[in-house]
Amino acid sequence: MTLPQRVRVVGTGLLGTSLALALQARGVDVTLADTSPTAAALASDMGAGRVAHAQDEAPDLVVVAAPPDVVVDVVAAELTAWPDATVTDVTSVKNVVVEGVARRCGAERCRFVPGHPMAGRERSGAVAARSDLFEGRTWVICPDGADDARVADVTAVAQVCGAHVVTMSPAAHDEAVAAVSHVPQVAASLVAAQLRELPDDAVALSGQGVRDVTRIAASDPMLWTQILAGNAAAVLPLLEGVRASLDDVIHALSVITSGGDASGGTRGLADVAVVGSTSVAVTPPATPVTQDAVGIRDAIATPGPRAVLAQTIAGGQEGRARIPGKHGAPAQAYASVAVVIPDEPGALGRVFTDVGETGISVEDMRLEHDDAVAAGLLELSVVPLRAQTLVSALSARGWAAHLVETA
Amino acid sequence: MTLPQRVRVVGTGLLGTSLALALQARGVDVTLADTSPTAAALASDMGAGRVAHAQDEAPDLVVVAAPPDVVVDVVAAELTAWPDATVTDVTSVKNVVVEGVARRCGAERCRFVPGHPMAGRERSGAVAARSDLFEGRTWVICPDGADDARVADVTAVAQVCGAHVVTMSPAAHDEAVAAVSHVPQVAASLVAAQLRELPDDAVALSGQGVRDVTRIAASDPMLWTQILAGNAAAVLPLLEGVRASLDDVIHALSVITSGGDASGGTRGLADVAVVGSTSVAVTPPATPVTQDAVGIRDAIATPGPRAVLAQTIAGGQEGRARIPGKHGAPAQAYASVAVVIPDEPGALGRVFTDVGETGISVEDMRLEHDDAVAAGLLELSVVPLRAQTLVSALSARGWAAHLVETA
Repeated sequence: MTLPQRVRVVGTGLLGTSLALALQARGVDVTLADTSPTAAALASDMGAGRVAHAQDEAPDLVVVAAPPDVVVDVVAAELTAWPDATVTDVTSVKNVVVEGVARRCGAERCRFVPGHPMAGRERSGAVAARSDLFEGRTWVICPDGADDARVADVTAVAQVCGAHVVTMSPAAHDEAVAAVSHVPQVAASLVAAQLRELPDDAVALSGQGVRDVTRIAASDPMLWTQILAGNAAAVLPLLEGVRASLDDVIHALSVITSGGDASGGTRGLADVAVVGSTSVAVTPPATPVTQDAVGIRDAIATPGPRAVLAQTIAGGQEGRARIPGKHGAPAQAYASVAVVIPDEPGALGRVFTDVGETGISVEDMRLEHDDAVAAGLLELSVVPLRAQTLVSALSARGWAAHLVETA
Repeated sequence: MTLPQRVRVVGTGLLGTSLALALQARGVDVTLADTSPTAAALASDMGAGRVAHAQDEAPDLVVVAAPPDVVVDVVAAELTAWPDATVTDVTSVKNVVVEGVARRCGAERCRFVPGHPMAGRERSGAVAARSDLFEGRTWVICPDGADDARVADVTAVAQVCGAHVVTMSPAAHDEAVAAVSHVPQVAASLVAAQLRELPDDAVALSGQGVRDVTRIAASDPMLWTQILAGNAAAVLPLLEGVRASLDDVIHALSVITSGGDASGGTRGLADVAVVGSTSVAVTPPATPVTQDAVGIRDAIATPGPRAVLAQTIAGGQEGRARIPGKHGAPAQAYASVAVVIPDEPGALGRVFTDVGETGISVEDMRLEHDDAVAAGLLELSVVPLRAQTLVSALSARGWAAHLVETA
């Protein structure tokens, strides 16, 4: 599998410029095009390649890294402009792109290889680009009607950038990212939005939990509007499922606040409908459904409000448990060592040195800290066999280190 | 402010045992009580103190660390059993506890100091306890009708455990944690729950985003059922606000999937109601509201579906921006240095050593990695002035290190 020698990057934002930087660094001849001449020049100044000109040699590969809402137009234009080139894209949604290109380009689509390097960040633009953006990331390729040789070109580019190539159908890709990326984005944004009206002393109580839940809420509205709109068909049913479960929780809480009347008056039918959205079986009534029957049916079919809350949290546990740990290993595969980090200059640097000297391989880490105070807590994940050794070594060096036993 | 000499801990779970470990380590005479003799014995074996006996001396302070649904009963019993002792609790909700104790104990409530050390984890039980659990955490105290001397006792205990004491009213506390803790928990659980039915190859695309959003979804259903039920009055209106915004997103996506018909048939009224929940002004119609009028009104008052999506993400950005960074500093106060970490034994250890040798103070860090592949990306936050120095030093030592410019 050989790397294309001449690559044309159309769209010098975060992904386009990062890819150009990576290819340029590996000796590929990269040309840069952007609707904004300034953006292309900036990317070129950063060392991402030459600004494209009319007299450029025909590229072997064109990478379209334009905003989602113009990708189909740009891909079609590039397929026409370069009749021998392979064309790929980096859009986070694939069905709309694949269908659009098929509709616009007919047989030429065999030169188009839809792709999605899963390497975003909260920051955007060429200034946030870096040549190692794709190192260790997954790069999805949807070889939908593309020639094998064209797929090989794009695969070579992804791999030389250090990415792990996964092949999926456009539909499977869109359903997957709807669940693991787009729904989490909407949830993070909605949770963060309700912090807007909060008093300062309330926001000051924010801990690592809300910090983690809302981290991706810092993402770009324009880009995400296009992503969500572009994947509306896959995101919609998932969000409707989330809303149904949210309604269960809201109903359970309203029952609790109202003192436990589960089937009161006009809410009767709604209750049954809402509860129906949980995994609780609703026994059909033997009698025609009157308000009374609904009351009875409700009493039979409705789990207590606290049961609904418990089911909600337990359901989240099950889903969370499905997310594999590093290298697909179960998240529980490592033991956790907690180290208290005083807020002194170089404290983390010193613990870095001490951990390094133990020669123990740290698999993962998390630094938790409280806004209001100094000390932080560093959690280091290591293989269970070495955990106690690490604790002893750090304690001997004066650190408050503890083996965190898993319940 | 003097530390109580004899402390009785009732409930030897994660918080009770951790507090007992911290106090015992500081020379306090700690006795341990739990409805489960095994749990109390386990905590004692862990070095948290003596198992309580009938002939124990009267404690100066009783810490009730029982499950939320029995806290009021236990606090009332302890106030009666120890007529001179200060009694405090560690429950995540405060209104229900304060009102319950006031109702049950009348004047004796002056000896009760409601508290909430904000130091939870996804793991529970004495086995997960550690003496430094409260280091650097916020400990909320609600001195609701309690004597100043009693408040001083609890404050001393919180501070000796390394916690930062914040004083709030029970109502302000409950509204704050509803927004920064309880709503995020529900959202994380709902997002994680929708991963349950996902194909394995789809779950395998999970990146750092969904990992962060769902981390706290691993929490204990029984505990959270009690927390949510105990704070239902504060959580309910916030979740209803989230649902209204979620409805806006769902409606916008359904308009997009249905080809842009914003005011079709029976959805007319619902549309106006839904859109009314955004910050978009709804112009009252000059004519009586008929379905036609609704259609027109809809067309006037409804922002385009993409505008709703953009508003949703932008609203999240605003809310996220309110969460202060470390020590209350804005999150943008530090420069970020990215280092590629190959998956080799001791790789993180080596980078720890090299960073340590630079003597540069690392303020925060994040390790991102992909399940499917080897390399990870370590992001180090340092003061901007030192960032380039760190990059150069690490590069000189053979690391792929990059200064991450903020857009």
